[in-house]
Amino acid sequence: MSGEFDLISRIAARVSPRPDVVLGIGDDGAILRPPAGSELVIVTDTLNSSVHFPESTAARDVGWKALAVNLSDLAAMGAAPAWCTLALSLPAPDDVWLDACIDGFLALAARHGIALVGGDTTRGPLSLTVTACGFVAPGTALRRDAAKAGDDIWVSGTLGDAAFALREVLQHRSCADELRSRLDRPTPRCMLGQSLVGIARACIDISDGVLQDLGHICVASGVGAEVRLDALPASAALAAQAEGMERWRLQSAGDDYELCFTADPARRDAVSALSESLGVRLTHVGRIVAGVGVRVLDADGLEVQLRRGYEHFG
Amino acid sequence: MSGEFDLISRIAARVSPRPDVVLGIGDDGAILRPPAGSELVIVTDTLNSSVHFPESTAARDVGWKALAVNLSDLAAMGAAPAWCTLALSLPAPDDVWLDACIDGFLALAARHGIALVGGDTTRGPLSLTVTACGFVAPGTALRRDAAKAGDDIWVSGTLGDAAFALREVLQHRSCADELRSRLDRPTPRCMLGQSLVGIARACIDISDGVLQDLGHICVASGVGAEVRLDALPASAALAAQAEGMERWRLQSAGDDYELCFTADPARRDAVSALSESLGVRLTHVGRIVAGVGVRVLDADGLEVQLRRGYEHFG
Repeated sequence: MSGEFDLISRIAARVSPRPDVVLGIGDDGAILRPPAGSELVIVTDTLNSSVHFPESTAARDVGWKALAVNLSDLAAMGAAPAWCTLALSLPAPDDVWLDACIDGFLALAARHGIALVGGDTTRGPLSLTVTACGFVAPGTALRRDAAKAGDDIWVSGTLGDAAFALREVLQHRSCADELRSRLDRPTPRCMLGQSLVGIARACIDISDGVLQDLGHICVASGVGAEVRLDALPASAALAAQAEGMERWRLQSAGDDYELCFTADPARRDAVSALSESLGVRLTHVGRIVAGVGVRVLDADGLEVQLRRGYEHFG
Repeated sequence: MSGEFDLISRIAARVSPRPDVVLGIGDDGAILRPPAGSELVIVTDTLNSSVHFPESTAARDVGWKALAVNLSDLAAMGAAPAWCTLALSLPAPDDVWLDACIDGFLALAARHGIALVGGDTTRGPLSLTVTACGFVAPGTALRRDAAKAGDDIWVSGTLGDAAFALREVLQHRSCADELRSRLDRPTPRCMLGQSLVGIARACIDISDGVLQDLGHICVASGVGAEVRLDALPASAALAAQAEGMERWRLQSAGDDYELCFTADPARRDAVSALSESLGVRLTHVGRIVAGVGVRVLDADGLEVQLRRGYEHFG
């Protein structure tokens, strides 16, 4: 391999510029010009091999996903993506793997106009930590602590495809491409998140499972929630593979990178209009109630016990 | 262990607040208010167990060092520390280890007034990635590309203590505390870095060895350098343990987290005054010349061949 410093130059040469980047990759730090009158949102997420993605994941997809999960966090805050850093640990030098990983990373970065401005490359077990920055108008960021009893609960896109694909991969079974791509190349809901500012009350991205992530909104907001399992949106591909309790388990297992948000029922028309204008399915899956905890109901309104999602040290 | 989410709350409760942190740990992202009219500097560095610190390193020191190496990068840019995130991968839940690690991290954070505003805790081989943000007045950041032929080359503090301690630890030999602490608890030169704005031309922090890091200044600035090995500052503790070529090798091995900077010889008085006012040793070790590469000279002015420092994939 060409060495750490060549590697850094090679990455730097492929990054798209932004006018607010005074100095990007290649110094001790990047120099950036935040826009006047904005608040800055910072998010960070790590992907470890075999924990956050199967070892068999293509390098290009690893790079894509490392950025995607962070863009998803920015989306959940309603922030417009701006800059990111990538800290990458690799067990051994591998130019081919690395170029493909950076390709995937930068392909997604270009879609969202986010500039890679710095990073660190070190020797160690395969791991990627991305930190991403975005902007919001002051006081407008979407937070977890803003839900109110009576709010509708909404979910974007469909849930469970990634969890189904992960199960198949881990059991060495083949899996339809459209399901596998939900696992390997999640679509961060950046435009949706920014458009929800002024419409949504609370918002979170679904990484650990919709019930667990909604639970974070409830704890932060001091409210409870009721979710109708049969309302959870499923793709046709997933619906063809799993139904009933099996499907619900997959739909609350996590790795979806959809948004879960609450909104005043008076804003239903605005939510519908947004769904139409962005071409993103938005599904009403329950409501915020007074109290604590997330109650999970089946089609008959009976309470169901379900594992709540993924916890690293649970 | 108490679980991922309790852990996050426990960390959040111990962080010192800053007035420019609108929302800290606990949401999808932190919300921050950059000061008007400043540029933002972002740095990121990873520490992997057995690569960046010996496995035997105390948890408290691991936390300290993870932040220290990033503060050192901010110092090298001349930036005032403000906010940071910590992405931490742990192989298994361990409340005691984690509390000690966070103690070390937050002890150093409090010294420099930097707020921990977010992070990620995941399962995986022990690894810490910190991203830190600071501020500089527009156009004043210290960069690698600003050295000019004729500049003096300066180094802060002393070099080689950490490399000596690492060698002793890896060979299971005991080592004086004052040397071991240079390895485990480096002192980032934050005040020095900020004070060098307007005095230094180019600046870098010494993580990979003074000759290699100075080489980065040379490449970025399109100049060469001459360094006198006998001028490299050594602590009394190191001088008592190693001399001549052995000492020079240790002094150019890295992990020092001192600053190496260049300045116009006309600024020698300013550099001396700064050394005195901050109580930080600043040593003139060579000069920037026209040409390329770093020439290394012994006490007689004869060229010496030395390994240039640490490269992860070299």
